Amino acid sequence: MKKIAVINGPNMNLLGRREPDRYGSLTLEAINARIEAEAAALGAECEFFQSNLEGEIVTAIQGAWDADGVILNAAAYTHYSVAIRDAVAAIAAPVVEVHMSNVHAREGFRRRSLIAPVCAGSISGFGAAGYSLALLALLKCHAGEGP
Amino acid sequence: MKKIAVINGPNMNLLGRREPDRYGSLTLEAINARIEAEAAALGAECEFFQSNLEGEIVTAIQGAWDADGVILNAAAYTHYSVAIRDAVAAIAAPVVEVHMSNVHAREGFRRRSLIAPVCAGSISGFGAAGYSLALLALLKCHAGEGP
Amino acid sequence: MKKIAVINGPNMNLLGRREPDRYGSLTLEAINARIEAEAAALGAECEFFQSNLEGEIVTAIQGAWDADGVILNAAAYTHYSVAIRDAVAAIAAPVVEVHMSNVHAREGFRRRSLIAPVCAGSISGFGAAGYSLALLALLKCHAGEGP
Amino acid sequence: MKKIAVINGPNMNLLGRREPDRYGSLTLEAINARIEAEAAALGAECEFFQSNLEGEIVTAIQGAWDADGVILNAAAYTHYSVAIRDAVAAIAAPVVEVHMSNVHAREGFRRRSLIAPVCAGSISGFGAAGYSLALLALLKCHAGEGP
Amino acid sequence: MKKIAVINGPNMNLLGRREPDRYGSLTLEAINARIEAEAAALGAECEFFQSNLEGEIVTAIQGAWDADGVILNAAAYTHYSVAIRDAVAAIAAPVVEVHMSNVHAREGFRRRSLIAPVCAGSISGFGAAGYSLALLALLKCHAGEGP
Amino acid sequence: MKKIAVINGPNMNLLGRREPDRYGSLTLEAINARIEAEAAALGAECEFFQSNLEGEIVTAIQGAWDADGVILNAAAYTHYSVAIRDAVAAIAAPVVEVHMSNVHAREGFRRRSLIAPVCAGSISGFGAAGYSLALLALLKCHAGEGP
Amino acid sequence: MKKIAVINGPNMNLLGRREPDRYGSLTLEAINARIEAEAAALGAECEFFQSNLEGEIVTAIQGAWDADGVILNAAAYTHYSVAIRDAVAAIAAPVVEVHMSNVHAREGFRRRSLIAPVCAGSISGFGAAGYSLALLALLKCHAGEGP
Amino acid sequence: MKKIAVINGPNMNLLGRREPDRYGSLTLEAINARIEAEAAALGAECEFFQSNLEGEIVTAIQGAWDADGVILNAAAYTHYSVAIRDAVAAIAAPVVEVHMSNVHAREGFRRRSLIAPVCAGSISGFGAAGYSLALLALLKCHAGEGP
Amino acid sequence: MKKIAVINGPNMNLLGRREPDRYGSLTLEAINARIEAEAAALGAECEFFQSNLEGEIVTAIQGAWDADGVILNAAAYTHYSVAIRDAVAAIAAPVVEVHMSNVHAREGFRRRSLIAPVCAGSISGFGAAGYSLALLALLKCHAGEGP
Amino acid sequence: MKKIAVINGPNMNLLGRREPDRYGSLTLEAINARIEAEAAALGAECEFFQSNLEGEIVTAIQGAWDADGVILNAAAYTHYSVAIRDAVAAIAAPVVEVHMSNVHAREGFRRRSLIAPVCAGSISGFGAAGYSLALLALLKCHAGEGP
Amino acid sequence: MKKIAVINGPNMNLLGRREPDRYGSLTLEAINARIEAEAAALGAECEFFQSNLEGEIVTAIQGAWDADGVILNAAAYTHYSVAIRDAVAAIAAPVVEVHMSNVHAREGFRRRSLIAPVCAGSISGFGAAGYSLALLALLKCHAGEGP
Amino acid sequence: MKKIAVINGPNMNLLGRREPDRYGSLTLEAINARIEAEAAALGAECEFFQSNLEGEIVTAIQGAWDADGVILNAAAYTHYSVAIRDAVAAIAAPVVEVHMSNVHAREGFRRRSLIAPVCAGSISGFGAAGYSLALLALLKCHAGEGP
Repeated sequence: MKKIAVINGPNMNLLGRREPDRYGSLTLEAINARIEAEAAALGAECEFFQSNLEGEIVTAIQGAWDADGVILNAAAYTHYSVAIRDAVAAIAAPVVEVHMSNVHAREGFRRRSLIAPVCAGSISGFGAAGYSLALLALLKCHAGEGP
Repeated sequence: MKKIAVINGPNMNLLGRREPDRYGSLTLEAINARIEAEAAALGAECEFFQSNLEGEIVTAIQGAWDADGVILNAAAYTHYSVAIRDAVAAIAAPVVEVHMSNVHAREGFRRRSLIAPVCAGSISGFGAAGYSLALLALLKCHAGEGP
Repeated sequence: MKKIAVINGPNMNLLGRREPDRYGSLTLEAINARIEAEAAALGAECEFFQSNLEGEIVTAIQGAWDADGVILNAAAYTHYSVAIRDAVAAIAAPVVEVHMSNVHAREGFRRRSLIAPVCAGSISGFGAAGYSLALLALLKCHAGEGP
Repeated sequence: MKKIAVINGPNMNLLGRREPDRYGSLTLEAINARIEAEAAALGAECEFFQSNLEGEIVTAIQGAWDADGVILNAAAYTHYSVAIRDAVAAIAAPVVEVHMSNVHAREGFRRRSLIAPVCAGSISGFGAAGYSLALLALLKCHAGEGP
Repeated sequence: MKKIAVINGPNMNLLGRREPDRYGSLTLEAINARIEAEAAALGAECEFFQSNLEGEIVTAIQGAWDADGVILNAAAYTHYSVAIRDAVAAIAAPVVEVHMSNVHAREGFRRRSLIAPVCAGSISGFGAAGYSLALLALLKCHAGEGP
Repeated sequence: MKKIAVINGPNMNLLGRREPDRYGSLTLEAINARIEAEAAALGAECEFFQSNLEGEIVTAIQGAWDADGVILNAAAYTHYSVAIRDAVAAIAAPVVEVHMSNVHAREGFRRRSLIAPVCAGSISGFGAAGYSLALLALLKCHAGEGP
Repeated sequence: MKKIAVINGPNMNLLGRREPDRYGSLTLEAINARIEAEAAALGAECEFFQSNLEGEIVTAIQGAWDADGVILNAAAYTHYSVAIRDAVAAIAAPVVEVHMSNVHAREGFRRRSLIAPVCAGSISGFGAAGYSLALLALLKCHAGEGP
Repeated sequence: MKKIAVINGPNMNLLGRREPDRYGSLTLEAINARIEAEAAALGAECEFFQSNLEGEIVTAIQGAWDADGVILNAAAYTHYSVAIRDAVAAIAAPVVEVHMSNVHAREGFRRRSLIAPVCAGSISGFGAAGYSLALLALLKCHAGEGP
Repeated sequence: MKKIAVINGPNMNLLGRREPDRYGSLTLEAINARIEAEAAALGAECEFFQSNLEGEIVTAIQGAWDADGVILNAAAYTHYSVAIRDAVAAIAAPVVEVHMSNVHAREGFRRRSLIAPVCAGSISGFGAAGYSLALLALLKCHAGEGP
Repeated sequence: MKKIAVINGPNMNLLGRREPDRYGSLTLEAINARIEAEAAALGAECEFFQSNLEGEIVTAIQGAWDADGVILNAAAYTHYSVAIRDAVAAIAAPVVEVHMSNVHAREGFRRRSLIAPVCAGSISGFGAAGYSLALLALLKCHAGEGP
Repeated sequence: MKKIAVINGPNMNLLGRREPDRYGSLTLEAINARIEAEAAALGAECEFFQSNLEGEIVTAIQGAWDADGVILNAAAYTHYSVAIRDAVAAIAAPVVEVHMSNVHAREGFRRRSLIAPVCAGSISGFGAAGYSLALLALLKCHAGEGP
Repeated sequence: MKKIAVINGPNMNLLGRREPDRYGSLTLEAINARIEAEAAALGAECEFFQSNLEGEIVTAIQGAWDADGVILNAAAYTHYSVAIRDAVAAIAAPVVEVHMSNVHAREGFRRRSLIAPVCAGSISGFGAAGYSLALLALLKCHAGEGP
């Protein structure tokens, strides 16, 4: 069975409560439950982690060294965490960056992702559905078609 | 039946022939055929367009004013075409930006997308599979979950 | 009889339909008709051109080499088209830059005009009336008062 | 009868004497006389003000709070006066920015206008005729056509 | 009784020991005791928190969602923590930013506050008294006078 | 009796009339009256000054050389007046910078204060109450606690 | 027989007519005729193309995929066309960049070439002779001497 | 008899009282008296002016249109006053810029002089003696040796 | 006996496993053991600490206030942690910055060290040997030779 | 007989030994010999100079004041030597800039040439053949075709 | 007898021959002769040095360690030589920077002087007379009036 | 016997005399003598070179092509010498960069090293001891531990 780590960063524990116009009304638990079900249907199991602490996210990414994939929404840390970038670059597992909002349509400092350059790919702007798309990307990409 | 416009920009007609390490060995025709099949399975039909001319892409986007969605890989024009940005912002249909390569891991000037801020969302780094993910994003996003 | 070329750039064919709050509800045809009437009253005739293609606008400007004046709304191309700038600088006819919206009150990248430095003058923010003002500027400026 | 305030900034009192190649040979008094006549023909009266002092220009703009329009050539202050910008933004009357020379074709620091973003529109490069165009813009714009 | 959260960031636990010329000789405990007394006199109670960990500060801010006010000295994190900014923006309580030293008179990187734009207001340069002023600002501002 | 100078910059004479959402509905006279009363209660008297002219503000600051404190809201001049900065740096009296709105949450050019680095401290975002806080900061700071 | 594609960009059709001081008095046809003769003398034949449309230049470069060399004067597009850059990088043929004027001695924005980094080499400042030098560079470089 | 205008900017009226380590202990009156004597010895007479108001300095420079030379210490306005620059550029008299302190050794924003590019020359760092040197430069430069 | 604190930052726990080409094949434990032995030979004892959490590193540095020296490899935090910088600046012990790789030869953002300016010195590029050199620097520098 | 000066800058004495992949395997002596032969065939003679010292290159350029042309590969000094630029601008002889590698495809700081703006033209990327092309450019350009 | 070192940088040996419009028609020898005479009249003797080599200028400045003053026209090196700056800062003698042309009115890169911040003062724009003014500044400044 | 080249740049000949607070009181001769002794103890011999001339340093580095190591303190040239960088990159010997002062704690322009990216490693801030550490780094690094 394939293993996928789903890692969420700071303030993602507020989902459903924080700016619902921007982030939707689903809680993180509800999103995780849906991802878990979708993964099961695709023959994979997920490990979920959320933290407000940059260093704990680093450790969680290190812990997924041999996973079949990592879905990472580093939230605010996306824009300045060299530590998370280094962890992503260090591990063997492919990492997909997800953002619920369209970060490109927000403040200038959110347009810069330190993490994207070392990820396999990046998905933003689709709300909770972004996690589902990332799961598909990790589990269903047509082999040998690159990149 | 839902209508999806799939619009590809300059040099995408070289797919399969140009830098296969970066862009895979599928031709654009092969990718389009697959998207067409996937769309049909989801009850949608696609209109395909490719051009090396910025202005023709502008016109094609205008022509999709009332589509149910646009999948847009503006390729090189992504990084400087205010004209395409204005067309995307003008039409009623939601537009999803797709890039086959991870543009964030390439030259600095490719990290700036003029188009992303006016799209619904953005997907990059998954090769030909990115089009499939965009199709799903347009047709299967859970309603009411934002953004 | 004096000859004036009126050249409009990308997405101007959407006038009346695109963001009416910003651009008004008149179509480009309606604006052109009005300019044509105003020109006739001033003893001039107009040639109208619109294109979404940068290169066709270049060609149209070249074609107005010996006109008595050019009214140019290069729209999105204003902000990056060195090609249009070079065409404006090359021809003998004076060119007046027009923008319907106040480009200075919009996104940062719209504050830079590559075309303004090689035009005779620039008018922005007056909606469709900007074309009328440009026509007057070309046909009625008091001779010998500079610049 | 409509009321228009015509406000000129520093060194405009030198018109006719200063760099005639750039600014023409008309004095400010001559320009004002012509504007006054043109306004009268359009059923409006003008109040004229010139000062080399930034703060007096601020006060003059405040004094035109309820005018039907303000024609403002802030000259050198255009490029750095937040104080004048704030006055323009504060009052109810629409303000049209005028520059006699084409500021976009001069030194880099003259390309930035702090005032343009809070004006209704902007006219530059037409010499003394710019004031006439601004007067028309304020008094004759076709209602309901934007911007 | 009103509730005020007082949150201090990294190295604030060194107060009284670290650079006394810049930060005074009071310990954080002594400052907190004084604020507690002043709050009591104004009919409010305080909850105090200090941490060197960015993520714990995020969590503490989240915990003050429904407080009547937050006094936040994010110290070094002020200048780069998007995570703390997002937490401040997310909660319902008004947040006042305090800095003991005049951050504007120090190194360039300290002049940029990521947090100030999402706070109600900002106070810097008054040493320990800054906390007292912030307390007053939260509890005694004249209602209806804005902002 | 202690003496406090209260100096307000350009457009502050419009208070109560200008953008009430941002600046509140109190006039400057009303604010000054309140400050005068608060100062009297603290055994101090105030001298009030407002001008739209940068140079008059410079002179007013010079005139407060030996005051016990200066409350300075330089308004728009805050962001570019080296002249006012030099006056603040020259005099012996401590100067407190006040802004009614949260300048950090506005246009980019308002985030730079030339004056803050030479002031004792800075207070922004509390509306008219900012003047009261500044008064307290000047008259009631606990001696010997720095800075 | 070797094949060389000679591709000229926007406004190059004005040669001989446009700014003769800068670009000389030869027409593009005359230059092409001379290059054709020189190529024939060196045992090669040329295909000539000029367009004002960026996308048509992209297509022309693609069409020279297997040529023995491309001489490219992208003119204004040199400075911003990622699309042309991508086409140059995609094809197998070596491309030599030519500019008639010394672009380094002109406006700042002309000093940046997006195309030069993916060309074999670059020649500028020699007027029409630049094409002749490029032809020699493509046909007569000493093999094995790099680069 | 030759006429020299000596114009001093904001806060120069504080000379002798303000930062004596940087500016020396002479008052402006004392410096002026010395310059007057030195000028008399060289067959010239001086007109002295000091103001804290930018616009009054503009007017004073205009008033020196036909002087044999202007000695200008614009003090703080040096670094941002386009208005003073325009006045200097407008008049016929040669202007020499003087600074008492070495502005190049101070804050970054003091290294930029808007006025220097339109002056005949510039002298800084010699304290009160700078005025004497400027007087010599205007009255005793060897003719025909340029610039 | 002298006391040296050896503090390593995020992802340093991966040494030996992460990018061995860049960081060598020694584990952190092996490096620490060697440093411990070298220190013992020089009459000093070491305390070792590693964490992925920025704030814990801050606390560890505070804990070394009175050590005879600190060897700090802050890894990724080097480039943005003002909090660590403040801790280094606060304590009495001299701190030596070590980097195993040559950070100057990597991505641009790694060339900026917030920590170096407040350290006694900096050593980079010598792999594990850098720690040994830092130990020598702290224990064997010739007294009185500066800096 | 025409005279051509061939001047090479720092590290060019290492040719054939330094990075042969980039610079080819020919020594500078071999290249010079070939240029000498080619020049002789065209009725010209060459003077060769190489130095690692910027100032000696300045002197050599001065010494070619009246040559019929200078071929200058300033190597590393290209990117920062204002002194060499001034020498090139001072002399009467036309100077052609040559680079063996394509400097535009290397580090960012190599894309800026201080020398190119004052040269007649520039040739880069053709290895040793670049000198031959420069020789032709100087000796065989069609007169009267500009520039 | 006082000793003054007069040091001139690269291309100054071309004076009289190079761009006479900018630099005058006097040779360096003629200027030096005049300075020598003027110095003698003031009871001082001069040592003259000119070199095109940055390092020789460094050595010459070192050699003037104990002179009573140095007049330094570093010419092109002014704008980038940290080595000359360090030499100026190291020696005990006061150094006066001289430029014949008004460097502030030329290319942007000439507006930055690395040397000015460590000089006593700076004089530019007065042609050969600048050296005479510098001599006076060194020998005749009124003692005790600073700086 | 191993050979080490020790190369010092401009103004290093002033050591012991120049700013002793920053650079210590040892002369360069004394430092070299100590390094020579330390090298002898490690079975190596040193060649010492100092020059104020950039080009001579380039030549010295070239001369150490086959040394076992180079210790390079390029002093001021560190920050702008592309020529020295190219020499370092060209030779086979490993080069260690040394700075006596902590360059990161000084002026901004000293934070940029053009040389560090092509060196094996970099040591700064340890005064004369830095040379000793560099010697150890070159002669005693544990083989096979990278980098």
